[in-house]
Amino acid sequence: MAKKVLIVYAHESPASFNAAAKDAAVAALTAQGCTVEVSDLYAMKFKAAATTEDITGGVKDAENFCYAKEIKLASEEGRLADDIKKEQEKLKEADLVIFQFPMYWSSVPAIMKGWMDRVLGSAYAQEKRYSEGMFKDKKAMLSFTTDCPESVYSDTGISGDINVTLWPLQNGILNYCGFQVFAPQIFWDPATGSPESRSSMLEGWRTRLQNLCGEAPVYFAPLDYFDKEKGFLLKPEVKEKYASKECGLTVGIHMGKPLPANSQTKAGV
Amino acid sequence: MAKKVLIVYAHESPASFNAAAKDAAVAALTAQGCTVEVSDLYAMKFKAAATTEDITGGVKDAENFCYAKEIKLASEEGRLADDIKKEQEKLKEADLVIFQFPMYWSSVPAIMKGWMDRVLGSAYAQEKRYSEGMFKDKKAMLSFTTDCPESVYSDTGISGDINVTLWPLQNGILNYCGFQVFAPQIFWDPATGSPESRSSMLEGWRTRLQNLCGEAPVYFAPLDYFDKEKGFLLKPEVKEKYASKECGLTVGIHMGKPLPANSQTKAGV
Repeated sequence: MAKKVLIVYAHESPASFNAAAKDAAVAALTAQGCTVEVSDLYAMKFKAAATTEDITGGVKDAENFCYAKEIKLASEEGRLADDIKKEQEKLKEADLVIFQFPMYWSSVPAIMKGWMDRVLGSAYAQEKRYSEGMFKDKKAMLSFTTDCPESVYSDTGISGDINVTLWPLQNGILNYCGFQVFAPQIFWDPATGSPESRSSMLEGWRTRLQNLCGEAPVYFAPLDYFDKEKGFLLKPEVKEKYASKECGLTVGIHMGKPLPANSQTKAGV
Repeated sequence: MAKKVLIVYAHESPASFNAAAKDAAVAALTAQGCTVEVSDLYAMKFKAAATTEDITGGVKDAENFCYAKEIKLASEEGRLADDIKKEQEKLKEADLVIFQFPMYWSSVPAIMKGWMDRVLGSAYAQEKRYSEGMFKDKKAMLSFTTDCPESVYSDTGISGDINVTLWPLQNGILNYCGFQVFAPQIFWDPATGSPESRSSMLEGWRTRLQNLCGEAPVYFAPLDYFDKEKGFLLKPEVKEKYASKECGLTVGIHMGKPLPANSQTKAGV
């Protein structure tokens, strides 16, 4: 079945490795019969700041302005700014969303955080989140470059386990919205490597793209593991089930135990 | 000794709890004799996206544009955009930087990430980072509101241990730049509480501010624990020293062991 893919892309330079990774994805997915749409955030001069201007016809509660509440209401009433509406239309069509970016300060660049704050804003809902989230029938993944080798982001490396750094992005944003999250595509320090190593990284990405849509997602705890009447803590029977296991459930829901290894970087761990 | 404090503030509404928290800090610190400067990002319409426009007189390598490299070079040559220069001047003067914001998607709002990407960009240096970072004589802290109770962000809560969520911000940004990081001030779900509970939260913040500058910082591993010739991994003697300990060194540098409890939310853990 032909899939629809949205690539949210954040690099200014068409000659960058990120551009090459994006182009490789467009080519490989198109060749498979997918329809690929690219949101080139810098080229679009995408507005990053979440402001009252994102809501047309005035905010409901100017005195106690709460972006999350207002954006949700405006979405229900069709009063979102045009640029948000356009991105939400692309998102609605997409089966898979790929975020392609250079890692800035252990996270996405501000312009991409702005896309998340503004476009995903109306998916922020305590009643329908995580495995019951708005986009539970869609997949999403991070594809990014670093400027350091993999060792730096290991559990004895100076910047710490990459699985910890990825948790707020993959759990707190993508999984929260319901997306099934594919393992991230991490390009370790392409800028420092040789042209051959860059070609080889891209070749690895092209190979992965051949079967990307058939991959299993990263594991997250399902919504029904938590007791919504008791502060969304793990239910006693779930805690008991996992009590004898060596590792915690996920990176964040670690239950005071060692983290499951590679759980944010490999499928189904 | 009178201190200089910079508050980087991101909320649009002067009637918000975030505004009240910022105002409380301004009042309490001023009363102690501190000089307080506020960067009100929304009021300043602070540019969030890190772009080539941040560098005056043209970029050095347009073909392979790398923001981190270009911004560093431009900083050394005095070719940064005026708004970045102004913020860097404030930062240079400051002994303490407080980031005041509502948590958006497990992180700072995009406009504040933009301040970090653009203003801290020239502090991103592999040779002088972490405990040898550019701002090692300064303190910094996060002060933020959530829209959920504390249980949600526990190690058995649905959003996972807040210490994990804070790691990329506190280690990957603040500690990376060298800042000594004070424990965060977390206002749990003020919007849902009663006016009395909000007053009580602010009162707690005012009390803490009385002795804030005398607090011990959060613990991070010093730079000399890592072998820069060997991928910045922990040195063998450090690994050995901590081998018998029950917990890992920090949240990210967990060595496959349980995370030290509350290490990103309490001083010196």
